[in-house]
Amino acid sequence: MPTILAFAGSLRKESFNKKLVKIAGKGAEEGGATVIYIDLLDYPLPVYNGDIEEAEGLPPNAIKLKKLMDEADGFIIASPEYNSSISGALKNTIDWVSRKGSPDEVYLSAFIDKVALILSASPSFLGGVRGLAHLRSILENIHTFVLPKQKIISFANEAFDSEGSLKKPGDQKEVFDLGKKLSQTIQKLRG
Amino acid sequence: MPTILAFAGSLRKESFNKKLVKIAGKGAEEGGATVIYIDLLDYPLPVYNGDIEEAEGLPPNAIKLKKLMDEADGFIIASPEYNSSISGALKNTIDWVSRKGSPDEVYLSAFIDKVALILSASPSFLGGVRGLAHLRSILENIHTFVLPKQKIISFANEAFDSEGSLKKPGDQKEVFDLGKKLSQTIQKLRG
Amino acid sequence: MPTILAFAGSLRKESFNKKLVKIAGKGAEEGGATVIYIDLLDYPLPVYNGDIEEAEGLPPNAIKLKKLMDEADGFIIASPEYNSSISGALKNTIDWVSRKGSPDEVYLSAFIDKVALILSASPSFLGGVRGLAHLRSILENIHTFVLPKQKIISFANEAFDSEGSLKKPGDQKEVFDLGKKLSQTIQKLRG
Amino acid sequence: MPTILAFAGSLRKESFNKKLVKIAGKGAEEGGATVIYIDLLDYPLPVYNGDIEEAEGLPPNAIKLKKLMDEADGFIIASPEYNSSISGALKNTIDWVSRKGSPDEVYLSAFIDKVALILSASPSFLGGVRGLAHLRSILENIHTFVLPKQKIISFANEAFDSEGSLKKPGDQKEVFDLGKKLSQTIQKLRG
Repeated sequence: MPTILAFAGSLRKESFNKKLVKIAGKGAEEGGATVIYIDLLDYPLPVYNGDIEEAEGLPPNAIKLKKLMDEADGFIIASPEYNSSISGALKNTIDWVSRKGSPDEVYLSAFIDKVALILSASPSFLGGVRGLAHLRSILENIHTFVLPKQKIISFANEAFDSEGSLKKPGDQKEVFDLGKKLSQTIQKLRG
Repeated sequence: MPTILAFAGSLRKESFNKKLVKIAGKGAEEGGATVIYIDLLDYPLPVYNGDIEEAEGLPPNAIKLKKLMDEADGFIIASPEYNSSISGALKNTIDWVSRKGSPDEVYLSAFIDKVALILSASPSFLGGVRGLAHLRSILENIHTFVLPKQKIISFANEAFDSEGSLKKPGDQKEVFDLGKKLSQTIQKLRG
Repeated sequence: MPTILAFAGSLRKESFNKKLVKIAGKGAEEGGATVIYIDLLDYPLPVYNGDIEEAEGLPPNAIKLKKLMDEADGFIIASPEYNSSISGALKNTIDWVSRKGSPDEVYLSAFIDKVALILSASPSFLGGVRGLAHLRSILENIHTFVLPKQKIISFANEAFDSEGSLKKPGDQKEVFDLGKKLSQTIQKLRG
Repeated sequence: MPTILAFAGSLRKESFNKKLVKIAGKGAEEGGATVIYIDLLDYPLPVYNGDIEEAEGLPPNAIKLKKLMDEADGFIIASPEYNSSISGALKNTIDWVSRKGSPDEVYLSAFIDKVALILSASPSFLGGVRGLAHLRSILENIHTFVLPKQKIISFANEAFDSEGSLKKPGDQKEVFDLGKKLSQTIQKLRG
């Protein structure tokens, strides 16, 4: 039974991407996974600075996030697009978690051979497609498998109903099915 | 006489990229520019969160940085590569500065029609080339002209002498000349 | 008075991108440039093969294209998006033209310090934005200045009227103005 | 038992990338796969033109390549880097094979849910890393799983011995092991 860590790259309370994470998460659960939903807002981190790391090691929240990611088999990440790339919040999280918590840790253990589904919702018509291109390349360079299929939601401010579902049934199903596919892919790869 | 704002994407005190900024800065000065050197460490920012922005507006340091960038004609940015992209610190700075400080501001005024030189120094053999690909696309998407020529310094931990110059005279000259070219390009474009 | 070479990355007779080239070309003419329109269909090339180059040198059409590009100060390139990147036709053209026609030629002379405007029209809703990301990085890596602003036309099959103008006046003006800006930028940079 | 189609993006007879393909292919065979080696030189194609496709359908060699790719479970692709992207030959092949051979075919059947290992050898010190970034994004956008780990061989003109093995034992093993991992990954995903 795979464990999937699900989170958005946005810190906003009413983030569209947090809604998207939930839809895919339900699909992953139907696919047999245990989904752990976290909110990066609950794990505030300083902006990464190598001098801080050298003097004090990883901050407690980085260690907590690292443990959660280490123990997960895969990730659902819904990322807003800020200035055609991923959010500073998401980049900063990846930067801290990619560091070793102790000398005997395996480098990049939180990411290597994990499987990720990436999604994006954005008020713009491009829906975050440029941000996902960066996110995909970042994750793959640290050896995470990224599902080739992704889903972007354009005009996100009009895309969700009051219950957090996507108004277009085709989109809702597609995101749900991608979550399910993530779960199934992990099970196959983990054997 | 153009004004160029010069900074590194790293917060480390002994950052290789801060050294690189200085070499290019000298070239820009020889090319006729006034170069203002800043250190992002002197402008600490919270990780960008749209809810904070809505409730409190831009933080004072974001407003200061924005003013510096608004008044500059161009930028020298030397960016470390963290996880094959730019640092969280640099992304977070761009995210804050790209927001409007007041309703009557021109959107993205700090970036539109500015000219940038991008550089990277990294201990790895790839020298930060993947990070610069992201930085380039980010800056151009917010309408900054980026000089097509860039310079990456591989094996940066062995590349600088004790005075902060690049040991290879060819590299030293190339970075210096790029700074000069930036200054000249701005003068041509500004007329 | 700058000379601009204008062409599409598609070989199709009724290519949307050929129409786009003409709109931007008119803007460039108003901006003071002489615009030379070519159709890659008139310069058929074999698929690039280093062994052919070594045995026979550049094909006559590659030499013709190279001469046209060498003599131009800048380019208007409208590129279709095939499989999320630029067309094989455009890539193959760049590959041939990037080679030296004779030993005493300056390497990449057709591209270095040239200025390019890139555009894309595509029947898809993404309008070719992923293809332009590749085109932009390719051109900049061979030292061509690419205007940071670009224009993509989504749903291109419904975007043009019978005279080849864009139905949305805002889009028409934007492409025209980008052509004009290209011409002005070249004049500034060439001094 | 998975079938893997293995080929280089170069047409040169003495291509470094053809050598690289063989090393990874041996690893894939040890991992239990049947590896079919092809040379794109044996499947010459015209440069893709939508008008030709409309008038005449796919050329015979495109149909042959499509059949080979349709029947394969995965791919080993070693791509040279031309002008910081993939070769025109490889792009043109993908463009033709991505088209439907007949109306009842499943769109992109040759690529969807396939698994690919991508490699690059180049005489430059960057070893083709920029070309692989483009290849990766192209393949994933047409729904091929790409192994996150890849291998680039810098200074390729000095990297191989007379038997086509990599002189550095670590590199030789890494490429071999990636081939093996590809085979194992396919077996897991195919169940």
